[in-house]
This record gives sequence, C-alpha cells and structure tokens, in this order.
Amino acid sequence: MRIALVAALVLSSGLAHADEGQWQPYQMPSIADKLAQRGIEIPAKQLADLTQYPMNAVVGLGYCTASFVSPQGLVVTNHHCAYRAIQYNSKTEHNYLADGFLANTKAEEPSAGPNERLYITEAVTDVTKQVNADLSNEPLARYEDIQSNRKALIKECETDENYRCSVSSFHNGLEYYLIKQLIIRDVRLVYAPPESVGAFGGDIDNYEYPRHSGDFTFLRAYVGKDGKPAGYAEDNVPFEPKSFLKINADGVKAGDGVFAAGYPGSTSRYRLTSELEFASDWMYPTYAKRYQLQIDTINQMAADNNTIAIKYAGSLASMANRMKKLNGLLDGFKATDIVGIKQDRENDFLAWLKKDTQANQNLITELEALLAKQQTQVQTDYFFNNAQSSSLLSAAKKLYRLAKEKQLPDAKREQGFQERDMKMFAANLTRLERSFDVSVDKTLWLQDLNAYMAQSQRVAILDDALNKISDAEALSAKLDGYYALTGLTDKEQRLAWMEQDAQAFETSSDPFIRLAVALHDTNMAQEKAENTLKGELSTARPEYMEAIIAYYKANDWPVYPDANRTLRITYGMVDGYQSRDALYKQPFTRLEGIVGKHTGEAPYNAPKKLLDAIATNDYGSHTVASVYQDPRSWICSLFSCLDKPEEFNSVPVNFLSSVDTTGGNSGSPVFNGKGELVGLNFDSTYEAITKDWFFNPTITRAVHVDFRYILWMMDKVDNAHNLMDELELVRD
Amino acid sequence: MRIALVAALVLSSGLAHADEGQWQPYQMPSIADKLAQRGIEIPAKQLADLTQYPMNAVVGLGYCTASFVSPQGLVVTNHHCAYRAIQYNSKTEHNYLADGFLANTKAEEPSAGPNERLYITEAVTDVTKQVNADLSNEPLARYEDIQSNRKALIKECETDENYRCSVSSFHNGLEYYLIKQLIIRDVRLVYAPPESVGAFGGDIDNYEYPRHSGDFTFLRAYVGKDGKPAGYAEDNVPFEPKSFLKINADGVKAGDGVFAAGYPGSTSRYRLTSELEFASDWMYPTYAKRYQLQIDTINQMAADNNTIAIKYAGSLASMANRMKKLNGLLDGFKATDIVGIKQDRENDFLAWLKKDTQANQNLITELEALLAKQQTQVQTDYFFNNAQSSSLLSAAKKLYRLAKEKQLPDAKREQGFQERDMKMFAANLTRLERSFDVSVDKTLWLQDLNAYMAQSQRVAILDDALNKISDAEALSAKLDGYYALTGLTDKEQRLAWMEQDAQAFETSSDPFIRLAVALHDTNMAQEKAENTLKGELSTARPEYMEAIIAYYKANDWPVYPDANRTLRITYGMVDGYQSRDALYKQPFTRLEGIVGKHTGEAPYNAPKKLLDAIATNDYGSHTVASVYQDPRSWICSLFSCLDKPEEFNSVPVNFLSSVDTTGGNSGSPVFNGKGELVGLNFDSTYEAITKDWFFNPTITRAVHVDFRYILWMMDKVDNAHNLMDELELVRD
Repeated sequence: MRIALVAALVLSSGLAHADEGQWQPYQMPSIADKLAQRGIEIPAKQLADLTQYPMNAVVGLGYCTASFVSPQGLVVTNHHCAYRAIQYNSKTEHNYLADGFLANTKAEEPSAGPNERLYITEAVTDVTKQVNADLSNEPLARYEDIQSNRKALIKECETDENYRCSVSSFHNGLEYYLIKQLIIRDVRLVYAPPESVGAFGGDIDNYEYPRHSGDFTFLRAYVGKDGKPAGYAEDNVPFEPKSFLKINADGVKAGDGVFAAGYPGSTSRYRLTSELEFASDWMYPTYAKRYQLQIDTINQMAADNNTIAIKYAGSLASMANRMKKLNGLLDGFKATDIVGIKQDRENDFLAWLKKDTQANQNLITELEALLAKQQTQVQTDYFFNNAQSSSLLSAAKKLYRLAKEKQLPDAKREQGFQERDMKMFAANLTRLERSFDVSVDKTLWLQDLNAYMAQSQRVAILDDALNKISDAEALSAKLDGYYALTGLTDKEQRLAWMEQDAQAFETSSDPFIRLAVALHDTNMAQEKAENTLKGELSTARPEYMEAIIAYYKANDWPVYPDANRTLRITYGMVDGYQSRDALYKQPFTRLEGIVGKHTGEAPYNAPKKLLDAIATNDYGSHTVASVYQDPRSWICSLFSCLDKPEEFNSVPVNFLSSVDTTGGNSGSPVFNGKGELVGLNFDSTYEAITKDWFFNPTITRAVHVDFRYILWMMDKVDNAHNLMDELELVRD
Repeated sequence: MRIALVAALVLSSGLAHADEGQWQPYQMPSIADKLAQRGIEIPAKQLADLTQYPMNAVVGLGYCTASFVSPQGLVVTNHHCAYRAIQYNSKTEHNYLADGFLANTKAEEPSAGPNERLYITEAVTDVTKQVNADLSNEPLARYEDIQSNRKALIKECETDENYRCSVSSFHNGLEYYLIKQLIIRDVRLVYAPPESVGAFGGDIDNYEYPRHSGDFTFLRAYVGKDGKPAGYAEDNVPFEPKSFLKINADGVKAGDGVFAAGYPGSTSRYRLTSELEFASDWMYPTYAKRYQLQIDTINQMAADNNTIAIKYAGSLASMANRMKKLNGLLDGFKATDIVGIKQDRENDFLAWLKKDTQANQNLITELEALLAKQQTQVQTDYFFNNAQSSSLLSAAKKLYRLAKEKQLPDAKREQGFQERDMKMFAANLTRLERSFDVSVDKTLWLQDLNAYMAQSQRVAILDDALNKISDAEALSAKLDGYYALTGLTDKEQRLAWMEQDAQAFETSSDPFIRLAVALHDTNMAQEKAENTLKGELSTARPEYMEAIIAYYKANDWPVYPDANRTLRITYGMVDGYQSRDALYKQPFTRLEGIVGKHTGEAPYNAPKKLLDAIATNDYGSHTVASVYQDPRSWICSLFSCLDKPEEFNSVPVNFLSSVDTTGGNSGSPVFNGKGELVGLNFDSTYEAITKDWFFNPTITRAVHVDFRYILWMMDKVDNAHNLMDELELVRD
C-alpha cells in the first residue's frame, strides 16, 4: 500500500520549497524550470509579456491589485480594497457596508467615488542609463540630478492625461524602470457582500488562519464613448479590456502549483543585519508604543461620541492593522532568530567577497557608516517630526511649500508639487475633514508635543513657537487657541490657500500657517540633510547590491528586487503549514467553519441568508470532495483505509499557498497552472509577517479567497446570475 | 441541517472507529477481533486474567490509577495524582512542589502521608444473584434489602484489614460484582518533577492540546517484613508485586494500536435523552453559575491573604478543573447536537422494541415518570442542600448521624458509618482544617443561604433555625455568632464528638451541632424519599438496560457498562484529530514545544535545567525520527521525497490516542500492542469532554505523557539513573 502512495505524493508535492520571489514579469523565462516543476504550464514567456493574457488583465488600484473578469470591464478585487467605494455609496437609507450591494443591471451601478482609479500597466522600460546620465559627484547635487532625470522621463512619457508614468528604483538604485500605466477614471460599484461576510472575523481574524472571509467585491471600468478613459459621466460605456481572466470553477487542490500577480508595496530582504537590528530593537517597538497610545486614545474618545467613531473608523482600522503587523514582526523576531540568520549570511558573503581581489572589501563598512548616520538622523528627528503631527499643521506646511515651489519652473519642482499633482493635492485637502475632528487631532498632537518636550533633542524654532511652554496644561490651553483661531478647518479656505503666494502665508495670522512658516526653513534643512545622505547612498547602495547579487547568483539563490509597488509575479503551491508544535493548519477552510465561528456578535455575525444557504447543504456544482482537507484522505481515496477520514464535502472558503506576497498584493488574482483564475489573495498568516525581512518557506503562507466560494455566494446566496453570465467559467 | 448532521454522526459512530468502550477485563475475549485489527497482539484472554501480566501490575489510588514498574514495588502515576503526597512532604526548607524531588536511595524515600493507599484488584466476582436474593416488592424495603445484601457480601469478603471489598452496580443495577482489593498502606514518595514540569501550562492548558506536561511521579509500595501490608514503619520493606510493567523505550508511532487500564469514575452513555436534557439545560448551567461565584469569591479573598491562598489552593484547583469541565460540556452541547443524536437513537430503539411482541412497550414511559420525579426532587432539594454547605455544619451532621447509627448493630448501619469506615471518618475530620478558613467558609455559606432565601422552595425547620431572618446583613451577623461560639473549629473537639451519644448532641449548645440536630429529621426524610425512588428505579432501570443492551447487540454495537470506578480496559490507536475547520492537531508534541510556550511566567515557566537540557539537542537514545509528526514524513522515510517535511527529530513529550477514558483514568498505564508500557494517561481534549454522554470517535482523544519523555527527564535532566536501573527497558 505504501509504495502506491509514495508515487502520488511525489507527484503532488513537487519540489523543495523554492517559492521565494516577487519577480518582475520580464524575469519569468529565467525561472521557467522552477515554474514547470510546480506544475505551472502556462509558458513563462507569455507571463513576461504585459500585452498578453493573463498579465494584461491585471490592474492596480494604487494601493491594491485587481483583475478584469469579463469582456465588459468587470473587475474583481478584495472587499477591503473597495471599502472606500462601498462606504462612499452607503447612506442611512441603504447601508451597503452592512447589507451588501448588487446591481441587477448596469444602470444600477453607482460611481465608486470621484477619486477611484484603475491603473493598467502597459509598458515597463529599463531607464537605468538615462537616470544615471550626467550625475554630479557631490552628494546633494547627485541626488537632485537623479530626481531631475526621473522627472524628465516621466514628463516625456505622460503624453496625455490618460497615462500615469513613474520611474521606480529597483535593487536600491541599481536599476531604474519607467512604468507607463493607462488610467481608468470612471469606476463603478457592481457587487459587494456585507462587511459581515467580506470582513468576517474582523480585527480578531486579521493576519490569522483558519480564515473564513468573503473578501471580494466587483467593480466595473467605464470609459467615454470613444473608448478612451474619461471622468464619470452617465453615458460612459463599459471598458473593453484587451483580455479578461477565465475562471476555473474546479479550483485547485493541495499540492497544486499556483501563481499570483500584483503590486506588492515594500520589502527589505537585502538589507544589512544592522538595519534589521535597528528596526527590531528601536523602530518597531518605538512605533508600536505610539500607535497603541493613539489607538487607545481614539477608542476612548469615540466610545461616547458617534461622530468621532464614524470619522476615525477608517483610521482606527488601518492603525489596528499596522499594530497587529508590528506585533507580528516583534513576535516573529522572538520566535525565529532572524538577526542571527542574516548575520550568518552576511559573514558568508564577506568571506565570499574576500576571494575576489578586484572587489571593494570595504563595501559593507562604508555602507554601515552611512546607515549609522541615517539611523541617528531618524532617531534625532523622530520626536520633532511627531511634534508636527496635527493634520491642520500638515496641511499648512504642504500649502506653504506649494507656494514656495511655485516660484520654480514646473520641471524643477519637487515631486508632489508639480502641475500633474494638483488634482490629487486638492483631493487630499478636500478629503481631510472626512477623518478629522478637532478634539482628537488636538489630543493626539498634544501627546506628541508632550513626548517631544520630555526628551532632549529639542529644536529651538519649535520651542520658541510654543513660547517654551513645557507645562502640559498651559500647552493644552495654547493649542486650544490654535484650533479656535485657524481657518483651516474650513474646506474652502484650505483650497483657497492653494492659490496664495508665499508672502500671503508669511503675513498670515492663522496660527497653523504661522507655525508652518516658522518651521519651514528647519524642515527644509532637515530634508536637505536627508537628501544629501540619499545622494551618498545612491553610490554605496548600488555598489553593495551589485556585489550581493553576484554572491546570490554564485549560490544559485533566487535574485529578484525588493517590492516597490511595481507589478510582480510570485509562484508557489497550495499548502498547509506547521503553525505550532503539533498544530497543523490545513490549506482549505469550509462553509461549515463559518457556522462554527458564528456567534451572532460582530465580528462573527454571519448574515442569516448566508447561514440559511449553508444549512441547505446545497453546494451546487462547487462541492469539492478532493481538496485533501485531511492529509490522509487522498491516501484513502487511492486505497480503502480502515480509518477513512471525513471527506471535504463542502465549498472551500479560503485557502493557503506559499506564494510570496506583501501589502499591496491584496486583491491579486491567484491563478492555477494554466493561468486560470482560482482565487483572490487578501492576507498572510501571523507567523509569516516577518517575511518582509526574511522569507521562511516552512511558515510563510498567503491567504486567498477561493473563487468557488465567490461563485457559490453569487449562485446560492445573492442570486447574482446576471454577473455569473458575464464570467467565462471553465472546468478542468 | 440538524438531520443531516445527526445522520452522518450516527452512521460514523457505528462504523468508522470502533474504539469506544470501557471494557470489563472479563469481556476482552469478546472483542478479540477488534483488538487484533488495531494491531494489539497480546492475547485477549491474558488481558482478562487479573492474576496475569499486565493486569496484575495495575493499581488504584482511590481516585486515580497507577502501575508497578519494578520488582521492588516502584509505582508510576501522574504528578497530579501524587500531588497530595508531594505537598505533604513540602516544607519551607525544601519545597518539592516547586523544585521537584528525587530520592537517591530507598532510605531517602519519605512517607507519602498517612492516608495514601494503593489498591490492587485481586478478584472480581459476579454477585448479581446474591444481591437480588429475597428482595421486597415495596420500594424502600427493596432498596434497603439490596444494601443489606451488599453489606453482607462485603463483610464476608473482608477477611482481614489488608483487604477492601466492595459491591459495585453495573448497567444501573442489572449486574453486581464483588471486588476484592489488597490495600498497601505504606506508600512513599520516590521521584517527582517540579510542578512547573508536572503541570506545565497549568489551568490554561488543562483539557487542551497541544500539551507539554511532564505529568508523572514515582511512588513506592512498602510492606511489613512478612511481606504483608502494614502501616508506615521505618523498617518496612519494598513490596514485591506479582509482576511489573516492561517499558518500551521505542514507544509508539501514529497509527499504532494502544490500550489502557484503569479506574474510570463515571459516565452516562446509556441514559435517556431526557436525562441529558436535564443535565445540559438545568444541572450544568446551575452548577456552573454557583462554581464561578465561589471561584471568584475565594480568589478575591485569597488575593491579599496568603493563609487563605495556601488553604484553598487545592480546592481552587479542583474547582477550576470542574468549571472547565462544565464549560466544556456546555460548549460541546452547542457544537454538536448530542440531544438530537440521542433522540434519534432512542426513537430507533423504540421502533425496534415494537417488533418484539413480548417486550414491555411502556418501558421508557415508566422510567421517564420515575426520572421526572427524581429531577423534581433534585431541583426542589438543590437550594436546601446548598444551604447546609458550611464545612462545620457538614461535620456536625455527620457526627450526629454517627451517634444515631451507632444505636444500630454494625451490619444494619448505613455505609460510611460502619466500624470499617471509622479510620477514614476520623481522617476526614482531622484533615478538615487543612482546607478550611472561617471567613471563607462563612462567606460561601452566606452566599448559599442568601440564594436559598431568594427562592420559594423553603423548608420551615431551616427558616425557623435561622429565626426567619431574610435580611442579608442580619443573617451575616447571625453566622458570625455561629463561628464565634462553635468548638468544631478545633480538631480535638471534632474527634471527641465521635465518641458522644445522640443525647449529648441534642443537649449541646454548640450552634453548628444544634443546627445539625434540628435539620436531622428533615434530612433523613429527604434521604428516605430518595431511597424509595431508588427502590423504584432498581426495577425500572435494569429492565430498560436489558432491553437497550439487546438492541445494541442486535445492531452489533459495543456493549460495556458505564464507568463506575472499577477496573476497565480501553483500546484505540495513536492518532491526531480535526480540532476545528482547517486545524489539525497532530498526535505527538516535542521538547521544542516547551521552549515555544515558555514565557518565564507561571504556568509557562519551565525550569532552567529542563530548558538547558533541551538546548543541548541531546535526545539520548530517545530521539524518535519516526513518530510521523508530519503526515507525509513516513512516506518520505520510505522514499526520497522532493519536498521532504521536517523530521520529528526530538523527544516526544505528550501524545494523543483514541482510547476511551474519563476522570479516574488519570495515571492509567498506556500500553503498546505487546502490552509494554509506553505512556501515562493524564487528560482529555476539550472537544472530547462530552464523551461522558456520547462518544464521538472523530474528536475524542485522550492525552498521554510519552514514556520517552519520562526516560529522557530521568536520564538527561534529573540524573535518576538509580531508578532507571530498576526499570525493565525493552526495545522494538
């Protein structure tokens, strides 16, 4: 019996875990053998081509990922990625967050909001040479030259308002790529489950597994009648994407190879050990302490004030998320000696480097010196920067900076203050009051000011501006005066300041404007010092990266750039993991697990229609008896076991795979080996949070919504057959 | 949904696992085929013979199980079963609870305490006929006749003070067995790990898994120089047991058949659905509410009073244990519709019964009527019984009852008040003050009295005794008077009352004695009513049991009596289980799991010597690479897998099996298929707590200490080579 089983296992399990890597699409042919070993049949060359299926169906949301799933511009992403769109359309009379939403016809599809965008990456071009052309040797000038070259490339690329271009640094400045994206500006809401489904388990389940989230929402891209992107207009028409994803209704099973595409935000895998130590010993604990205080403060103030509760709901959710991530990082560093692992590798790298007589042996020492300087800078500026945390002060600072930047020609202005940025600049000023309350803003700012006062790294100009008040009560009274006298709480006034010149700011009596003006030179000096250091690092970092890449290649380790919000592909396999001693988390969860968690109280308050549908045991054609929930079941499916484990016999809700993701990969399409859509990425497991620094293949798992659950919801719960008809469903 | 679930469970419970059953040893040959299927090679006939290996090496502790493991009377049981013995020997200068204890020579082995006993079951004889001989038809007389017959059999059996005999009811009075046990009265403490090992994880881990408890302690049986049992004397010699258990140092692996022997306390598997409903809907919630109040009260009073903390540590621990069990029962009834399952089976039984024209079709109806009466009795008496909860009142009641019973010839007295019981009677009176504090006793009693006052089922005699005070404060003041005036807080006075006649009680001015005398007739009337009902049930229950057993046999289901503190054997296999959706608990835990849980704070405060020993990775010869921690590893051990899972490569600490246990099975030896010792049973998993009512084979697992962990502790941590030399270690 055992021999027969072995064959099956070898077939299903593939290779040693070599799933690490957030690959640039062009790199795919270089790992074609690894993809094949995982059972990914779609040609690597095809994946590298952004103009072909499936990559031309993948879109960015700016902070999340999505994909086209119908010829009529239907887009699917996570519920939490579309949260703002759902919230925007929720009113007292129809609360789509609470009840969910389904448009029965296109006419019923409302705008997702004026600021929602879809970005379709059309071209990625290596511009390393252009960015590095004619650079000064003096650090600050070198930094500014790089920025000028980047801005020139962007300007040249952005031929019309339908395109957004950017120049991204890869491998810490070793390479630069120009990315050209088509912008869809009319995005509409099509279908969203209630928050009690989309975020079932809420903060408690966030970063946890077993998970039972229906974290999906459908949007639709609209364009003008001419087929070109346009702002919202009632008579706009659905966008016809170059291609859209086929959905495999048979899904995947344990051991299957999968891949995902998306826009991962940021990782630090090539950083030095000293950088990790700085993060784990100082940065994360320091940040965590302040976040926790802020969370507790806002929660307390929101407890008996509904206006505050609503305005800060979004901030609290994202702070809770960041806090859990920080705790996960700190717990992860306790559980695994990542510093030790990194130090070992670094020592090995140095030994390797010694063999190369041509190499700069002081590579790391030189870089360390700059990093030490940078860390001191961060620590020195920490309290001063926090002391400017008021949202109104931030707005005032940006507005004054804008007035100053406007004195320069557009091409010379800092990014964020150019003409191309003005729409977003105004949108941000407009949006401010949605998540702003004077009492909260003041309380948090006062906490930061008191923390600044309590330490020694003082900045004279700020101390003077605050009349050197160090008494907490007097300081509080002074701040009350700021909020009483300012006009910046008024949206129109904030927007009006966009048109004022610098002199108007310098003669204003608005206390926040005055403070912004007073601090301006100090802040600019600080920025100049930072940029000078960046200029120095812009030679040291690439030199180090070049050497470390050579070292990795010599070891035959995967080499891919750290995440930087650009389009990437990651592959892996459907797999459970050993969570703790004797505790194995299996790769699929079931509908019945929702019933098991349901308490009737948020965040475990599944809607009645969902519970009723589960109770019917009508899994439709989405029943999957073969996802191998119990590790023995596939053995018993081959042989008649004495002790046959329960069959899966349910609709899979969420599943795990070993693909390599991070923040920004939310909503990423997860594909089977044929490149057919089988799930949506939406989270990682708690043990895996440290993967931003070190990818540990035994515990790193991403959590996906199984598309079979989405189809079952459409079919059996929400009657969304109009949408199902639009999808192209395929079977194995 | 309920219907589908029930059907699935009923189906699976009959077929899949057939490990259910707490079998009387004589029954083993009847399940020989099932044992063989599980790979249990030792002949069933041998297991049935209490005079042969291994059953003659199994001993009872009265409340736990233990076994002989050396020719010199060395006994192993759980740390929590030997807790009293360790506590008894712990002093300020050597705290064995905190630090553990190891006797390096026999001379260093201290007495486990004057009340510790080992019971060796030598014979079990069917005495059903004798117990049922010449019974009256009148219920109360019938009950008393049964008791007389039982007492006569016991008297005849207890030939000398070295034997304890009892007549136990099986299948609710359908059968009776006379059990003859040799009593070892000189028990000594030999080797115990610190509580931080023996109860690692404490209350938090209690009833939970993954588990990492070193819940073992070694004792030694001593006898007089003549080889006969004797009370403690310095020159007593080690007892030479008829046999002792061989220990297999290679242990077991996943899928192996195992069996366990022991003294399970009480189960209710044949009870009617209405009885389960009464327990789940009224009894358990009512008890839980009172326990929680008592736990909170004692914790609060102990918080700033060390004397109370010490005196009530034991009570609190056992209350916490009972509370967790109650919660487990209530949670389990929520998770699985056991009432529905039982009702289905009962309906099926009735349908089956209808086919038998000879059968009494009113069987259940008649029994239900008596049970309804009994439930009313329990509910009516509940508050009145609690209103007598003071430990001093309990002592007074027992003492007065003794004086009254003494007016009868010994054979006619109630069990517990006969001459044979007087040693234990005195011991209990002596022990009272070890876990007694006036302020706590009064507070808890007052709570019970207030609860009694707040409801309508009042008893005039008690109301009168309390002067009909219903004001809580006045009542509290009155109770203060009781404690101020009583002499029962003094041990000598309590013991002296054993010699007094009834008249002395009736003329005493001691308030607790007076209250006991006042309540006596009411309590006796209550007991008489209960006994009358028992007399009625003594015909209805056996009739029902006879029918239900026939029904079970017709279905080819296992038939074994409910647990009743008599010697049983249970078999099963080493196996993990599906704890929740997508959460699989694997059968073995590892040393490294201790490090993973260790926080340095109780209850996760592993001693340094243990952590140091783990850190050396020196697993000695107890490394086991093949317990199949990862379900794939045994496949990869045969074949070279591409994706080889981590090897177990550690010492197994605890393991799970599907043997059928309950309270009283603590310390039970767990055997491999050859009858060699491989572990000690010590707990069940939380999901399995409802097994007292319904054995669900998919989630019911018992938790065992792996003997490899015990050997490794002896070898690598505690240097207990003197003891290891006594053991007979064998290998596969």
